[in-house]
Amino acid sequence: MSVKCDKIVRSATHIAFFRKKGARGKARSTVQGLLSPAVLEYPMEYPITSEIHFEDPQYKKSLKEFYEYWSNNLITLAKENDVVVLCEGDPFFYGSFMHLHSRMQGKVDIEVIPGITGMSACWTSLGRPFSWGDDSILVLMGTLEKKKILSGLRHADAVVIMKVGDHVEKVKNCLNEVGLLKRAWIVENGSMKNEKIKKLSEYILPNAPYFSVILVHGQGRRP
Amino acid sequence: MSVKCDKIVRSATHIAFFRKKGARGKARSTVQGLLSPAVLEYPMEYPITSEIHFEDPQYKKSLKEFYEYWSNNLITLAKENDVVVLCEGDPFFYGSFMHLHSRMQGKVDIEVIPGITGMSACWTSLGRPFSWGDDSILVLMGTLEKKKILSGLRHADAVVIMKVGDHVEKVKNCLNEVGLLKRAWIVENGSMKNEKIKKLSEYILPNAPYFSVILVHGQGRRP
Repeated sequence: MSVKCDKIVRSATHIAFFRKKGARGKARSTVQGLLSPAVLEYPMEYPITSEIHFEDPQYKKSLKEFYEYWSNNLITLAKENDVVVLCEGDPFFYGSFMHLHSRMQGKVDIEVIPGITGMSACWTSLGRPFSWGDDSILVLMGTLEKKKILSGLRHADAVVIMKVGDHVEKVKNCLNEVGLLKRAWIVENGSMKNEKIKKLSEYILPNAPYFSVILVHGQGRRP
Repeated sequence: MSVKCDKIVRSATHIAFFRKKGARGKARSTVQGLLSPAVLEYPMEYPITSEIHFEDPQYKKSLKEFYEYWSNNLITLAKENDVVVLCEGDPFFYGSFMHLHSRMQGKVDIEVIPGITGMSACWTSLGRPFSWGDDSILVLMGTLEKKKILSGLRHADAVVIMKVGDHVEKVKNCLNEVGLLKRAWIVENGSMKNEKIKKLSEYILPNAPYFSVILVHGQGRRP
């Protein structure tokens, strides 16, 4: 966590954060011990996570309503008080907060504080430099169809695959097809207490945890 | 800067950092005011930066000697004391420290602390979410030849171009050829005092500062 973020969290009077229904929330757990005892908390509970496919109209409708509800709530709250919204990683890098941010544009002042991305945490845990010299890096979502993953993989030197979940087998097959499987690692829950690092070729589970990142290191120029 | 990094820098007794000959060094300037008055400083001055092309054997030889000299120095120093090496951004993401890290493997214990990448700082400054839903991101170096840049650009939704320097015209032409120039921004010296943001299509200088990043935002799925 950045010094700036730490300071803001410690002095927060109102905090909001996303979480899965029934869970405590990763972002909220991260700031445990930093918060003022008098802080007012606003857990924003996703109506669904992966129970319905994201192309299903019900998924879209449900999330749209959720983001509209909370962006309106935060706008109202922010008229009277500064509200701190907790995000995991970097807010503008695939963060849920972006869906609130775009709805609050022009209605309230928003300051975004950049963060350390999950992928940086993961390649640091692996203990080896990720990208060298002129290496290009491709950040790909495991949710994409096989054809798209394959064509992307053919145009990058180093690869990050996020949103792996129940797409592990498909991703493994794609990496194998382009000859990258032997160089691929999977980091589960990077930088968290339950972090696990495995060679992807030896990964036998059909589902990876939500916070899993697959990495293929670059091999570029080094004097 | 992360809380962890801040703490380590403040308690450092020995710090090393890269800098251009004759300059103060960006990393060193960043920690001004945090250091103990008694700290011992080891500026590692690049023998060359962009005076010679990186494919020139003289460039390779000169940098190789430089990294060998400093990795040996740091190994010797680290036998007696903890040495903090300052890095800009994230050390394993195109950082110069990687060239020391690989040479010191197995000879000394090294702890790497992940950081906020320059690209995160730049898209935060632009004030808009960078990547949505299933967007793929390509991180490309401006130093690559036109053909490679073009084929990469055709396989990504969002694009980050680093090492722009005197390759601005080539990069602009490539982005124009694939229809992305109108969506491209250039951030000079992101997150620093002299930060400047411009539309790339309106950028008329033939050379961009070393710390320049070109960004094309993704336009993916958003409920």
